[in-house]
Amino acid sequence: MRCPDEPGLIYHISRVLYGHGLNILRNDEFVERTTSFFFMRTEFTGTFEAHALLQELREALPSAADIRLSDNRPKNIVLLATKEHHCLSELLVRNAFQELNARILAVVSNHEVLGNLTRQFGVPFHYISHDDKSREAHEAEVRQVLDGYAPEFVVLAKYMRILSPEFVEAYANRLINIHHSFLPAFVGASPYAQAYERGVKIIGATAHFVNEQLDQGPIIAQSVIPVDHTHSAAEMAQAGRDVEKIVLARSLRLVFAERVFVHQNKTIIFD
Amino acid sequence: MRCPDEPGLIYHISRVLYGHGLNILRNDEFVERTTSFFFMRTEFTGTFEAHALLQELREALPSAADIRLSDNRPKNIVLLATKEHHCLSELLVRNAFQELNARILAVVSNHEVLGNLTRQFGVPFHYISHDDKSREAHEAEVRQVLDGYAPEFVVLAKYMRILSPEFVEAYANRLINIHHSFLPAFVGASPYAQAYERGVKIIGATAHFVNEQLDQGPIIAQSVIPVDHTHSAAEMAQAGRDVEKIVLARSLRLVFAERVFVHQNKTIIFD
Amino acid sequence: MRCPDEPGLIYHISRVLYGHGLNILRNDEFVERTTSFFFMRTEFTGTFEAHALLQELREALPSAADIRLSDNRPKNIVLLATKEHHCLSELLVRNAFQELNARILAVVSNHEVLGNLTRQFGVPFHYISHDDKSREAHEAEVRQVLDGYAPEFVVLAKYMRILSPEFVEAYANRLINIHHSFLPAFVGASPYAQAYERGVKIIGATAHFVNEQLDQGPIIAQSVIPVDHTHSAAEMAQAGRDVEKIVLARSLRLVFAERVFVHQNKTIIFD
Amino acid sequence: MRCPDEPGLIYHISRVLYGHGLNILRNDEFVERTTSFFFMRTEFTGTFEAHALLQELREALPSAADIRLSDNRPKNIVLLATKEHHCLSELLVRNAFQELNARILAVVSNHEVLGNLTRQFGVPFHYISHDDKSREAHEAEVRQVLDGYAPEFVVLAKYMRILSPEFVEAYANRLINIHHSFLPAFVGASPYAQAYERGVKIIGATAHFVNEQLDQGPIIAQSVIPVDHTHSAAEMAQAGRDVEKIVLARSLRLVFAERVFVHQNKTIIFD
Repeated sequence: MRCPDEPGLIYHISRVLYGHGLNILRNDEFVERTTSFFFMRTEFTGTFEAHALLQELREALPSAADIRLSDNRPKNIVLLATKEHHCLSELLVRNAFQELNARILAVVSNHEVLGNLTRQFGVPFHYISHDDKSREAHEAEVRQVLDGYAPEFVVLAKYMRILSPEFVEAYANRLINIHHSFLPAFVGASPYAQAYERGVKIIGATAHFVNEQLDQGPIIAQSVIPVDHTHSAAEMAQAGRDVEKIVLARSLRLVFAERVFVHQNKTIIFD
Repeated sequence: MRCPDEPGLIYHISRVLYGHGLNILRNDEFVERTTSFFFMRTEFTGTFEAHALLQELREALPSAADIRLSDNRPKNIVLLATKEHHCLSELLVRNAFQELNARILAVVSNHEVLGNLTRQFGVPFHYISHDDKSREAHEAEVRQVLDGYAPEFVVLAKYMRILSPEFVEAYANRLINIHHSFLPAFVGASPYAQAYERGVKIIGATAHFVNEQLDQGPIIAQSVIPVDHTHSAAEMAQAGRDVEKIVLARSLRLVFAERVFVHQNKTIIFD
Repeated sequence: MRCPDEPGLIYHISRVLYGHGLNILRNDEFVERTTSFFFMRTEFTGTFEAHALLQELREALPSAADIRLSDNRPKNIVLLATKEHHCLSELLVRNAFQELNARILAVVSNHEVLGNLTRQFGVPFHYISHDDKSREAHEAEVRQVLDGYAPEFVVLAKYMRILSPEFVEAYANRLINIHHSFLPAFVGASPYAQAYERGVKIIGATAHFVNEQLDQGPIIAQSVIPVDHTHSAAEMAQAGRDVEKIVLARSLRLVFAERVFVHQNKTIIFD
Repeated sequence: MRCPDEPGLIYHISRVLYGHGLNILRNDEFVERTTSFFFMRTEFTGTFEAHALLQELREALPSAADIRLSDNRPKNIVLLATKEHHCLSELLVRNAFQELNARILAVVSNHEVLGNLTRQFGVPFHYISHDDKSREAHEAEVRQVLDGYAPEFVVLAKYMRILSPEFVEAYANRLINIHHSFLPAFVGASPYAQAYERGVKIIGATAHFVNEQLDQGPIIAQSVIPVDHTHSAAEMAQAGRDVEKIVLARSLRLVFAERVFVHQNKTIIFD
């Protein structure tokens, strides 16, 4: 739940849960000071009637409170990819061994090269070429296939095309990208080439929700590795791939476990 | 507060605080599963009568609950050191700029070399040589000086002598050591020489509470840095010193802010 | 090349290479001080007759010098695994995309569970159960299959059985293991359970050559990640898996590129 | 030495050193591919006449080669600071214990607050207020004091004023700054406030040579630490200070040991 902060919120919530005889396994709160906003995530077990419980919580809390009840079932997701395999491979493997807390319904790509890998894991692969199509026409095709799966989340697993504001809006807070730099350093194309040019000693990767501004969405997770003058731009890219796939997988674990709140342009994560 | 876990603990505590009109700034809970023990730390502001509030909390909670009310004033501490300056320097500097959330009342050392540094910062320095003294006699002298300051915490800032069980018992959970390895690797003397011999690729440091078993006490913080075959044991030690002083300072920040619970041989840290 | 250190080694080597008109791309030297041993690795391009060049280098250098000429072709390897998939998956994926600088000839396992994954990547899978067999009999079977492939390296990708000294001897300096702790912390079985019990704040993984002593072989690469009191032993294991597979892949990259020298019980790595 | 790459450079240098009976302790080479430039740093011991050796090396190498002979005596340096003490404290302490491979000749500051700390360590402190002075007039005063010490390096230990291109030019490749962000993220003022606004999950610090473009000079060393949504901008700054001072000290160790080559806008570091 989230709402503007006021005294007694924890008390009111814990009173309702206690009244239902529910057992709190884990409880996290945070008050964002600059906006005076309260966030709380409670894991509990016990027997309850969801509608009644929600109703009672709503009555106990300010009317502005945004309350969600959720079980922990795997999320339905679709992946978008282009040519690089490392993030896709990572997710397909985890999916195959039920480690993703999600079901990959399909992979959509503007290239064919990742088709065999995807099908090998028994996941449908949709090749939608962008050749001879306008950006709008291509995206419309992608969108149609995607919407057909009704995914809860869409993951850009190194999808190298920019999505329209309409697309982003349709999947607001449900569209996750992995950017191959330590944002906000090296926004835009070819971040490893930029990093090489700048002579940095550390490179990184950033998993973030996509919003209407390129590479500006709320950051979920970041990670880095050291490099030095012996690394060419290509070697930086190679080293960076290991970071990218791990940081993307970690961010998905957090999001799919509903540990991530988006507030304005930031994330609050109860890890 | 801490007590065996049972339903309603958060509810009971938040009810009492709400009843007093107190404003919760931050709230952290943790249930240790293997022992089914509940830990909670609440930061709040407001006007209250401490005795009455404690009394009410005690009545609201199980009789086994261990409840503490604390303000956030700086702790009184004494440092023990030997010859190496880096941890002592770090703490003296932070103390001088009021960044330690503590007051260093004195430094006690079995060598003279750190005397000038200490006095330069206006802190009393007690040189208690161990020459020609039994271990017991030396420790008794140290103990007498130490007890005279009635410190809330004693920090072993690279103090290279082993303390007796009686000493450790007297300062139980108030005696903090920095060990120059990534425990439990390289327990005992000369950890960098051991690390060099073993050919490790990462070295580290561990800040921990001291208990009756050498290097076995509850770990507060650890940190590491990479090394390689070009590092001699002396160079590993040099590189390690930067990690040691930072990890010690970090662990003290946590302990002095009362964010650290000791439970059996582990720490629970609400960072 | 490697040999006891003496003046002029770099000069003699560079003279021979210069005389052949070869172009040095990269040159690394190291002198291990405690044993006064010299190590050098030179990457060069150009046209030469290997036998004559080697002969000339041998004449120019002390008779004790160990000199190797090597091209950079992919190594032939066999993997041993048990039940956990994460290291195996990582290597199979990299193999499929030619990122391993090696060819996985086969996977041998004492369990069946990883068979589908392996075959899915077109790699032969040998299931050799240890049920109802002595340790010796089981190992002999594994050994026979393994030797049939004549691999240049054998990688223990979470193979959970201890190998005999004879096995280790047969694959000396060609047998690589990933141990799921930051060695030498937590030698032996169940390192994550040990780490949980000890209450460490950082866990790690170690890739090393296997020698006759359990978990004591020369370390190639190590990596760590932070954990805290909220991690159960199972969650530490889960978090550790990401580190294990990356550190194993990294160590293989180094070994297969012939950047790793083993000297006594340590590695010298020209990364 | 450095020069455009060509075959035989290592051979020619090692021949001269071998001819003088000098013993190479450590040798590092690097060829920068995009500009085809060769860099080499050799540590050697032995008896030689410097002028003759240099002369012979110059004759053996291309005329474009830039060759330097250097002993390893401590460098003379001056520090510039403003109000924050942490970097200055770090360097004063290391200086006091001869760990800096340098002598701090003086500290110059535009504020008075760090005077006591500096003098306490027996180092001259020059307070040059910028009140009621033009930028040019103030810098001229600073410059005059600085030049009086004829320092080999000038270290900006959190000096918060921008220096003129003339100043930077006068101390080209001898002027080192610590920037409190992971450059090129958060160039300019208030990087922690920027980092907080952007919601990053990692913050860092960058030590770099200063050139005529703000925060654009060659990077020497970078380091990072994780942060999360609970950190205010002030807490990020506090956490960042530990990284700043360590990364600055590390970069100075490298520079003062003459391990750092500047090439175009990057550094080549033989660590």
